[in-house]
Amino acid sequence: MIFQNENSFEVKEKIDKSRVAILPIGAVEAHGPHLPLGTDNYLAERLSERVAERTGAFVLPTLPYGQVWSLKNFPGSITISNDSLINFIVDIGISLYEQGFRIFAMINGHLGNAAAMKEAARKLYSQYPDFKILYLFYPGVKQVTDEVRKTKSSHASYFHACEIETSYMLYLAEEYVDMSKAISDIPNIPMSADVTPTPWEEFTSSAVLGDATLATKEKGEKIIEVAISNMITLIEGAKNELKGS
Amino acid sequence: MIFQNENSFEVKEKIDKSRVAILPIGAVEAHGPHLPLGTDNYLAERLSERVAERTGAFVLPTLPYGQVWSLKNFPGSITISNDSLINFIVDIGISLYEQGFRIFAMINGHLGNAAAMKEAARKLYSQYPDFKILYLFYPGVKQVTDEVRKTKSSHASYFHACEIETSYMLYLAEEYVDMSKAISDIPNIPMSADVTPTPWEEFTSSAVLGDATLATKEKGEKIIEVAISNMITLIEGAKNELKGS
Amino acid sequence: MIFQNENSFEVKEKIDKSRVAILPIGAVEAHGPHLPLGTDNYLAERLSERVAERTGAFVLPTLPYGQVWSLKNFPGSITISNDSLINFIVDIGISLYEQGFRIFAMINGHLGNAAAMKEAARKLYSQYPDFKILYLFYPGVKQVTDEVRKTKSSHASYFHACEIETSYMLYLAEEYVDMSKAISDIPNIPMSADVTPTPWEEFTSSAVLGDATLATKEKGEKIIEVAISNMITLIEGAKNELKGS
Amino acid sequence: MIFQNENSFEVKEKIDKSRVAILPIGAVEAHGPHLPLGTDNYLAERLSERVAERTGAFVLPTLPYGQVWSLKNFPGSITISNDSLINFIVDIGISLYEQGFRIFAMINGHLGNAAAMKEAARKLYSQYPDFKILYLFYPGVKQVTDEVRKTKSSHASYFHACEIETSYMLYLAEEYVDMSKAISDIPNIPMSADVTPTPWEEFTSSAVLGDATLATKEKGEKIIEVAISNMITLIEGAKNELKGS
Amino acid sequence: MIFQNENSFEVKEKIDKSRVAILPIGAVEAHGPHLPLGTDNYLAERLSERVAERTGAFVLPTLPYGQVWSLKNFPGSITISNDSLINFIVDIGISLYEQGFRIFAMINGHLGNAAAMKEAARKLYSQYPDFKILYLFYPGVKQVTDEVRKTKSSHASYFHACEIETSYMLYLAEEYVDMSKAISDIPNIPMSADVTPTPWEEFTSSAVLGDATLATKEKGEKIIEVAISNMITLIEGAKNELKGS
Amino acid sequence: MIFQNENSFEVKEKIDKSRVAILPIGAVEAHGPHLPLGTDNYLAERLSERVAERTGAFVLPTLPYGQVWSLKNFPGSITISNDSLINFIVDIGISLYEQGFRIFAMINGHLGNAAAMKEAARKLYSQYPDFKILYLFYPGVKQVTDEVRKTKSSHASYFHACEIETSYMLYLAEEYVDMSKAISDIPNIPMSADVTPTPWEEFTSSAVLGDATLATKEKGEKIIEVAISNMITLIEGAKNELKGS
Repeated sequence: MIFQNENSFEVKEKIDKSRVAILPIGAVEAHGPHLPLGTDNYLAERLSERVAERTGAFVLPTLPYGQVWSLKNFPGSITISNDSLINFIVDIGISLYEQGFRIFAMINGHLGNAAAMKEAARKLYSQYPDFKILYLFYPGVKQVTDEVRKTKSSHASYFHACEIETSYMLYLAEEYVDMSKAISDIPNIPMSADVTPTPWEEFTSSAVLGDATLATKEKGEKIIEVAISNMITLIEGAKNELKGS
Repeated sequence: MIFQNENSFEVKEKIDKSRVAILPIGAVEAHGPHLPLGTDNYLAERLSERVAERTGAFVLPTLPYGQVWSLKNFPGSITISNDSLINFIVDIGISLYEQGFRIFAMINGHLGNAAAMKEAARKLYSQYPDFKILYLFYPGVKQVTDEVRKTKSSHASYFHACEIETSYMLYLAEEYVDMSKAISDIPNIPMSADVTPTPWEEFTSSAVLGDATLATKEKGEKIIEVAISNMITLIEGAKNELKGS
Repeated sequence: MIFQNENSFEVKEKIDKSRVAILPIGAVEAHGPHLPLGTDNYLAERLSERVAERTGAFVLPTLPYGQVWSLKNFPGSITISNDSLINFIVDIGISLYEQGFRIFAMINGHLGNAAAMKEAARKLYSQYPDFKILYLFYPGVKQVTDEVRKTKSSHASYFHACEIETSYMLYLAEEYVDMSKAISDIPNIPMSADVTPTPWEEFTSSAVLGDATLATKEKGEKIIEVAISNMITLIEGAKNELKGS
Repeated sequence: MIFQNENSFEVKEKIDKSRVAILPIGAVEAHGPHLPLGTDNYLAERLSERVAERTGAFVLPTLPYGQVWSLKNFPGSITISNDSLINFIVDIGISLYEQGFRIFAMINGHLGNAAAMKEAARKLYSQYPDFKILYLFYPGVKQVTDEVRKTKSSHASYFHACEIETSYMLYLAEEYVDMSKAISDIPNIPMSADVTPTPWEEFTSSAVLGDATLATKEKGEKIIEVAISNMITLIEGAKNELKGS
Repeated sequence: MIFQNENSFEVKEKIDKSRVAILPIGAVEAHGPHLPLGTDNYLAERLSERVAERTGAFVLPTLPYGQVWSLKNFPGSITISNDSLINFIVDIGISLYEQGFRIFAMINGHLGNAAAMKEAARKLYSQYPDFKILYLFYPGVKQVTDEVRKTKSSHASYFHACEIETSYMLYLAEEYVDMSKAISDIPNIPMSADVTPTPWEEFTSSAVLGDATLATKEKGEKIIEVAISNMITLIEGAKNELKGS
Repeated sequence: MIFQNENSFEVKEKIDKSRVAILPIGAVEAHGPHLPLGTDNYLAERLSERVAERTGAFVLPTLPYGQVWSLKNFPGSITISNDSLINFIVDIGISLYEQGFRIFAMINGHLGNAAAMKEAARKLYSQYPDFKILYLFYPGVKQVTDEVRKTKSSHASYFHACEIETSYMLYLAEEYVDMSKAISDIPNIPMSADVTPTPWEEFTSSAVLGDATLATKEKGEKIIEVAISNMITLIEGAKNELKGS
């Protein structure tokens, strides 16, 4: 169900049958010494494939650039402005609708994209009220994450290149992880970081927010399977609404 | 030299040494019955890898969505507006410059992207006069193409899913081609198509502009190797200018 | 310290001494039967006055229109797009900087404004790196709120016209509350509301997300005093950074 | 009829009965030593209340920031660009229309807002041809002003912090005027000021364009009552057109 | 001194000597039965030539499209939005500055362009503080017009295809006037036309605002010569400021 | 058939009969020592008149400013950004459609305008699918040009102030040509000029791309008559489609 491997002669009928397009969105961003710059792309892509398999969805090509304001000054990061990202996603969404898709699920591997994705979704929704647009970033994993983690979270909403995200990678894209380089670097994030523009170099030099050495494939599996299960539930819910309408 | 597989701790030094980033740009677009929707992505990506190998460049993740105005009404096509595409490329370019790159070579697999790429390049150039930005679409292949092709070109500047482009795919990404489905469909493109907005469904129902059955890997090789060679020459020329300045 | 009551002949010196401008931002938005449409404006304004008193800041005139996407279809709501709101705030910020202010604290009474405020703050910060811009929405009240509330929160991040917000109003702007009309209306907010555009009429007809009848001035005081204290701490922290730089 | 003091449960019916929303628009701007920075806000707000009383209109919260290009370099001024102001007003207008209002009267206290208000009105009108949008700046007071004033006007269309505007304030918002500080400062405004960008510091250091010491409440009353009467006539005229259509 | 008739090899030196560029701006707009659609273009162009002769300025090619909102529904009118017009003028201004001009005088034949011209001038001024930008629309002719006219003006600021404007054409571009078709059509323009969007078809079917039959070349001469004289004074004043700076 | 010489009372009927508007678009741009800055304007205008005569079209006033990125640093050039040019053309097109025109033929004298014209045409087409918009730049002259020219072309798509363009001017606007100043200056344009932003001063100091001394009126006639003939064919073709629809 890799969309770009389909051909134009046969795809129309398949779209009409599936109705669901999944867009993996990630970023090119510093992820410490043990994870690659493309970590969020690999996560988004692998998650998308698994969700697609179980929902009959098409997986679109990964949008591999995202909004990386906080880490843009770290080596290797590439950042897209919110405005550019919103417009790009809206354009993709318009084409998907015109092509016959009625559910557009963005599976996000990078928290920085969340604001743009939500705004793009609202713009599309106002244009096409019968278009279900989902913006998904590990939905509903708070509880399992709290159970699984050994170390306290460095921040209420961020996790980055740490015990958690490294575990995700070990489960989903192990071949890109070099655990021999994993470090523990627990920053002290000031309260002000949530309320004033704060590039992350102000509180970390590694971009690792926690103890990556504690990451395991098993931890990743536990959380990721909950995320996948929730994403499937949400997409199936959207399908049911489509049928009902 | 896959950029997103690098890690942040080591990449800075490598960027400073290489200075050259290659961005493959393609599209999701109808390419007849025998070629996949992602044809232009595969071509851009494979070309980029080959050029990178021989220029010491980094290959960025493929930007897999492009301006597909002419074919947007064909099944499977996804189109991005020129404005959105320009802004997205400019944002990437700004980050590349800030990260230390001084040559930004876009390797394009889809003619529809050309106007946006040129405009983006000019915007970046006006902001960073010492930034070499290249927009490359099979440069300098006119003569070899004329020699290689058996059928006349359907149009002075377009080629699409035909003897030529199918040959490219056979050489660069054979695994995505299904020659058993290849067709010959030579449209009569009216002169007006060049001077008035003309969606391609006005002159073709297949999106194949020629005789794809005549495509061979050897034809692809002959042309593509010229294109690669020219791209290398252009990038090396830019490097020499950098050194000279 | 009401900025608009100052006169031009004397204000320059006062700005140079204070350096801190507080902008109350609210909204005109449905808040059930017992709270006025301007609830978020009154909250933002009263909070701003209290914080200003204790930080030597100027209070700017309230920006009384905000982003009210979720409730825009409820009677009385007025919504501003994120783009318009961002640009408006950026313009205010530019003038404040040019006038000599170096700390710009936005005190927000309406969660829907948060994304625009953050984006505006980043734009200002990139233009004026020595400008401290704070976007404050009841910072650091999670724990005290959990202690104070009798009813469970309807949602992890929203609260609206409920036990909590009504208590805020009873403490800060009691004269606008009509507790005789207060109702309890605990909606069942589906998980999908967090991941797909969901106007609130899909899960509530009252716009009250909880039991407003349980609101008391005392509850409001407990939480609001924590919020105020944190806001003062954050502003004083920004002042110290200014001095240090 | 203060809109933001209404509640959502009752406001719908009241809107449908009134149909008229008044938006006071002012500015934060230097007004000499005797008038506050918020002079234009107080004027717009007080005028709006009086007009609303006699037309059954709702008064919206004051938009307290305006286009202050000419005086932006004076202490205390805050300026919004025309673009930002236009977009903000258009957004408000769209919500008003969607809420059921059919007459949107902007009562302006600051001449600098006029161009943006007119442009916003035209944009709204093109979107909603049955929406009556009025932009009102002391309409029809030329004759009475000429009769009342003792000093010649400094300029054909500007008046500022002078005999006239100070009289307005004495009549409408006396508590914010400090006549003990009033000065006379009659500038020589060159003809070029009307045809080339001319910040006012080029011809005045006080921002007072005339003799403020001659201001009286009675002068203010005479002019303001004419303005109010004309505004009522215009709004009633718009109501009659609504009924007729 | 027709700029576009100069050649590139010699123009640089001439620009450096003159420093003054005049841009005629008009419109294509209904002007009754006796005047052509291009009336405002002919007026702007002829005025520009006369002013240029006496100031050593270059006359640029006429910008023959303007903002014609009020008359856009009349046969033959073409309207440009304010935004498009502003951006176009700003671009011209930037090139003029880069080419060495230091005075940019726009001579306007169409009142509807005034807001865009002023905004464009301010944008250019903020970018190039030493660039004198003038926006000229028959400056300083109020008194002479009142003396010359036989009929009362239909409106305080508009005049259109009437005694006055037809006289201008008789003086400046007589060959385009057909006095045998001139009519008198004195509309009753309601007060509301100044405060609410009002396409002119609401009060006139001819687009003639007065008695065109009373127009004479002599009337035109009297007013136009005052306008020309004032424009020369303003440009010479700007030159003197340049020298002084 | 000069549109701006028509009057509003009679033009409606004529538009309905003709349906065809021609917009000449040129530029102010360096053209060597022997051709004026307005060369492209004169060419566009003269071509338009000849085509209009034979198609019953109206000729609109020339849009005399274009996108001159490549030559903007040469004395006398004025450049408009693509964005500004697109928006301006779109506005003209909207008015033309509203006025009753159904064929909008832009006759272009300057290659740099081509991208903006095509983009504007597509925007108009998406808004008005029954509007035929043509962007014409010497269509179909490749063969005759190759036959006529004595010197090889300096570049596959550019020609500028050379044997060819000077011949055009000799045929269409001889009075503006000074052959006594004509020069031969054959630049060596590097391959990189097609793939990276390259201001022309990098390869020419004269802006003449060839041997202007070889230009003759006869050569101009041969090519121009082919271009005119093709433009007529294209416009007549569009008319036939209109009738057919």
